[in-house]
Amino acid sequence: MTKQELFDNIKRKQSFLCVGLDPDVAKMPASLGGDLLAFNRAIVDATAPYAIAFKPNLAFYEVQGARGYAAFEQTVAYIREHYPDMFIIADAKRGDIGNTSRMYASGVFDTLGADAITVAPYMGSDSVSPFVGHDGKWVILLALTSNAGSSDFQMLTDGQGTPLYEHVLTQSQRWATDEQMMYVVGATKAEMLTRVRELVPDHFLLVPGVGAQGGSLDEVARHGMNRQCGLIVNSSRGIIHASSGDDFAQVAAQKASAIQQQMAKLLADYGILG
Amino acid sequence: MTKQELFDNIKRKQSFLCVGLDPDVAKMPASLGGDLLAFNRAIVDATAPYAIAFKPNLAFYEVQGARGYAAFEQTVAYIREHYPDMFIIADAKRGDIGNTSRMYASGVFDTLGADAITVAPYMGSDSVSPFVGHDGKWVILLALTSNAGSSDFQMLTDGQGTPLYEHVLTQSQRWATDEQMMYVVGATKAEMLTRVRELVPDHFLLVPGVGAQGGSLDEVARHGMNRQCGLIVNSSRGIIHASSGDDFAQVAAQKASAIQQQMAKLLADYGILG
Repeated sequence: MTKQELFDNIKRKQSFLCVGLDPDVAKMPASLGGDLLAFNRAIVDATAPYAIAFKPNLAFYEVQGARGYAAFEQTVAYIREHYPDMFIIADAKRGDIGNTSRMYASGVFDTLGADAITVAPYMGSDSVSPFVGHDGKWVILLALTSNAGSSDFQMLTDGQGTPLYEHVLTQSQRWATDEQMMYVVGATKAEMLTRVRELVPDHFLLVPGVGAQGGSLDEVARHGMNRQCGLIVNSSRGIIHASSGDDFAQVAAQKASAIQQQMAKLLADYGILG
Repeated sequence: MTKQELFDNIKRKQSFLCVGLDPDVAKMPASLGGDLLAFNRAIVDATAPYAIAFKPNLAFYEVQGARGYAAFEQTVAYIREHYPDMFIIADAKRGDIGNTSRMYASGVFDTLGADAITVAPYMGSDSVSPFVGHDGKWVILLALTSNAGSSDFQMLTDGQGTPLYEHVLTQSQRWATDEQMMYVVGATKAEMLTRVRELVPDHFLLVPGVGAQGGSLDEVARHGMNRQCGLIVNSSRGIIHASSGDDFAQVAAQKASAIQQQMAKLLADYGILG
């Protein structure tokens, strides 16, 4: 998917919501018997009208081993078949030496058919570059994450006072364009989006941490939105596990719809809908 | 596996070799028809006498999707059944927010039954801690990797001239003991092992990059060995793909045996066999 196509979807659906497909069996209704695919299909069908992206996190599938990995694959195939305009992010936070990252890239883009993969920057350029240059595909690089531990290393400063995450934002722009790369910036750090936007004015940002993790959508929009929206805001638990009863999909739709309405207003307020 | 058990295995087999199970279908004999499990079984049987650890890298399985993930699982089960003393490392370089890392830890330790997992430190303490504290299990944290891109961020220095990878080594010692955590330090940076050993004198180090990536075993031992050996040195391509013919397992055994003999000499020279 190109950047323009993504922006067109955002305008058409008046939404920049990504639904995180992180199914926790302990929070699923017992009637599903732990069937990740059945759960995901119901969530996808219920929330697709309000979302422009889905983001399954691999951890929630690998916990079940090969059976879980198959459910992950089938989930992506289901979305692709029924909602071809949906942007699909494999939230994998991969990254390895060059020949290994090439395998990961082939797995997620060729075998799986996802549109994007999240990648960790610690190993540097040759661990990230193999994910770049696949036609219409994206690498989403961790910059400033939403968790408490993000302060341990991401905020470490060099002799000029520049924190590590800023080095990640600036250096990585030599490896890929804003048509190939996005960045993860946590919603719990909304005020820092202003600084992020100075460094990457035109890139899309994937913003997790709204909802269960406490980030505010209004704050994220105020500090992070650009003329092409430039934001994909993710909510996982706050939507998919809002109810653990048999009404989980219905409640998920309500939650997603409420966020979409708030997003539609923000898009209008900031003049994005044109 | 405890640290003492690992050391006992090293002394008994006079080896600190880890064989990287990174099967590349393009380099496998055509007669195997791309069957990762059949390839791995042959490699494991051929090299087990000379190794104390096996390290499958997930990328080489995920490239085949759920089918590949099943081959990964079956490979670990095969090693566990036939070589119960072998230390099995899931080379996954995972790391995510706390509740997600907990899922990864459960997947690799409980579902899969591996002894250790490699983890990327970028997201900090609460992304690493969920992997710590599983009885007899290990987290192997990336510190200084063997690839060229390691200089991009790992070598960035703070105002006092301390590089990021040293911060990783020092901070992470608050999260886990040397009975719970090891570090990845690339063999291509052998001379830097001296500095690493000042910071983590008692930890085991997982050292990739010997062989295909150009690192020297003698250099690694000189700078990195401690009184309990303290090294697990990995070779992947240099062993498993030394031949792409039907004699691949036989040639792999020869390569592994040659490294084991070199390791036996080093262990004797440094007085480790006692």
